[in-house]
Amino acid sequence: MHPTPLAFLLFAEGASGSIPLSMLILFASAKLMAEVAERLNQPGIVGEILAGVLIGPSVLGWLAPNEFLSAMSDLGAMFLLFRVGLEVKSSELMRVGGTAMLVACSGVIVPFLMGAAILLLWGAKLNEAIFVGASLVATSVGITAQVLSAKGLLHEISSKVILAAAVIDDVLGLLVLAVVSSLTRGKFNALQLSLTALLAAGFTVIVARWGTHAMRRVTPHIERTLKASEARFVLALSLLFFLAVLAVSTGVAAIVGAFLAGLALAESSGTRERDLAQGVSEFLVPFFLAGIGLHVDLSAFAKPATAVLAIVLLAAAVVSKFIGCGLGGLGLGKANALRIGVGMIPRGEVGMIVAQIGLGFGILSRNSYAVVVFMSVATTIIAPPLIKMAYGSLLQLPGDALGEEVLRMG
Amino acid sequence: MHPTPLAFLLFAEGASGSIPLSMLILFASAKLMAEVAERLNQPGIVGEILAGVLIGPSVLGWLAPNEFLSAMSDLGAMFLLFRVGLEVKSSELMRVGGTAMLVACSGVIVPFLMGAAILLLWGAKLNEAIFVGASLVATSVGITAQVLSAKGLLHEISSKVILAAAVIDDVLGLLVLAVVSSLTRGKFNALQLSLTALLAAGFTVIVARWGTHAMRRVTPHIERTLKASEARFVLALSLLFFLAVLAVSTGVAAIVGAFLAGLALAESSGTRERDLAQGVSEFLVPFFLAGIGLHVDLSAFAKPATAVLAIVLLAAAVVSKFIGCGLGGLGLGKANALRIGVGMIPRGEVGMIVAQIGLGFGILSRNSYAVVVFMSVATTIIAPPLIKMAYGSLLQLPGDALGEEVLRMG
Repeated sequence: MHPTPLAFLLFAEGASGSIPLSMLILFASAKLMAEVAERLNQPGIVGEILAGVLIGPSVLGWLAPNEFLSAMSDLGAMFLLFRVGLEVKSSELMRVGGTAMLVACSGVIVPFLMGAAILLLWGAKLNEAIFVGASLVATSVGITAQVLSAKGLLHEISSKVILAAAVIDDVLGLLVLAVVSSLTRGKFNALQLSLTALLAAGFTVIVARWGTHAMRRVTPHIERTLKASEARFVLALSLLFFLAVLAVSTGVAAIVGAFLAGLALAESSGTRERDLAQGVSEFLVPFFLAGIGLHVDLSAFAKPATAVLAIVLLAAAVVSKFIGCGLGGLGLGKANALRIGVGMIPRGEVGMIVAQIGLGFGILSRNSYAVVVFMSVATTIIAPPLIKMAYGSLLQLPGDALGEEVLRMG
Repeated sequence: MHPTPLAFLLFAEGASGSIPLSMLILFASAKLMAEVAERLNQPGIVGEILAGVLIGPSVLGWLAPNEFLSAMSDLGAMFLLFRVGLEVKSSELMRVGGTAMLVACSGVIVPFLMGAAILLLWGAKLNEAIFVGASLVATSVGITAQVLSAKGLLHEISSKVILAAAVIDDVLGLLVLAVVSSLTRGKFNALQLSLTALLAAGFTVIVARWGTHAMRRVTPHIERTLKASEARFVLALSLLFFLAVLAVSTGVAAIVGAFLAGLALAESSGTRERDLAQGVSEFLVPFFLAGIGLHVDLSAFAKPATAVLAIVLLAAAVVSKFIGCGLGGLGLGKANALRIGVGMIPRGEVGMIVAQIGLGFGILSRNSYAVVVFMSVATTIIAPPLIKMAYGSLLQLPGDALGEEVLRMG
């Protein structure tokens, strides 16, 4: 029974009255499905993404993507990458920079060519094929990072290559998207594109290289000065937002800024800030994961042709990243190449954003859009079990990783 | 320099592209102003609210209230009350129930009559006067709770009376608003109103009375069953959202549900969940506090008459709650009555919501709306220093910091 509409007005103005309800549905179902996945011996993350598909418009229709949920999802991705950054030393990422660059580059070229070729063979227009190719380019580092972090594997060399490559890959993805957008719309400007590239790369390299050093010098000083409680955490959050803003304005994704903020603080932050940041990310990350699943629209696959294209493109997305990135990582041995190959598979929110831009420009049809979104979500669901398998021997060895696993279960 | 608009699209669809920037501005300025306030020996909370006024439309114009910020503000209020609930035992609130009921009732009647009388004397229409009276009724418990919690004073008997009275006051405020809305619009239905009252009061009393017991029995069982990491925190958040939804649908504010969730878990939750919840509230509470300040519109006060009315109404808001609630609390002695009187002064978001409803119905003029918002914000800024003064003797007993520690343990 519903006493009065005033009840909703009492909570908040306008449409946000249903916020507690959306939060309950999304959070609880994501966590419930994570539990189910864990019991089936699958990574919990797969359950959380599937929960989004389940409660989304295609199946139960309880929730649809909206501005609030999308903001929460962006924040979730930011805090996820921030927390991962906190666990990694930037000097160690720098050390694998060469391999990571190789992995990122071949992991961009192979998927782009394969995706565009498939669409051309399918009879799509050149512009549409190019855009679909571009949507296969960038890895969603959040998915892999979450799996590796949950299993205590972030300190493996392959994990570091994956993280570094995914950041480089984001910058490359931006460039591919910028080139593709301007080419397909006939507004190509080489000077502006070079400037974009320079700015994005410059920001990333400078913060990754000198951020840690700067924070190690600044933090103790500020800590002595500030009177507020939890001053270090406040400082960490401010840096996170600041670098996210800088990242967006130099052209990189906000999550890259968040990751760099975590990196910069990795050596100067204590357990208290880590615990507090962990709280925020436990709260927000389900919105990122289930938010990805929420975008799936299965109704487009009523046409068998579209369904076939979706499956072919999904296979290409998996194979092309695996081959491209695996080849780039061969220098570290076959086992590591395998891990890097599967670790770079998830496209997640990045592929969806490219598809949205293509749809907005009128270059992608409604069908190709649905196909790309399906590919983006399906790669995030397929990758975690593959990652678990590829790292399997490490999970079973005695030592660090296993130790953490035991502690977690205990 | 701004390389390409694609940069923003890369972050998120639509208007949410500026999310990291709004977050940086709001969070950093709130914390900066909190620091300034602390250095002036004022509660940090006053700085955070003033930061909202400062960056808001009236002064710097950097940010204006929007759907995203309002959602963050609602979440901030929910987590603030959740965390406060975690620190209080519901049995202790029940014990002061009688006094709290007295405080709440006289704290509703006196402000309502005084507010309506002032508007009538000012020459407003009866309906408008009644609505302004209603906007003076409900206390924003979050403001006082934050001050008391920051100073470690939640375990004082006067603090418990304030918390319990503020919850009762919220239910009464809902009823006053429902009655006023239906009267002024000529749609009075006594049966429906009684049902609303019964439902709201029933929900609150049942959860407050039996919630702790239920959680103490359920938590260990669920904990043994769940495989996921941080299962207890996940459970706590789910309960928080669940009770917020129930609260809203029975007619009470979502924050009351959040507070009840905290209460229910107060005895069964450990330090780990508390730390994680603390992280979320450190992150979100500035959005609640500065979000209140953001609503101030000083341009309405260009007319001297409006400015005078605003000051008169503000004085009435302070005096009427102080007298009403202080009288209700006299049974606990003069010192406690004083604390209760000032603790109930802040109107915060509650007064603003009533004003928005009145504006939406066409009953409040633009000017009266601005006056009520000003009163709501100004009471939240005036109250914290008064609360600090009223509790002064407790803070200064065995030295400042030590005193807080002792009280916290006691």
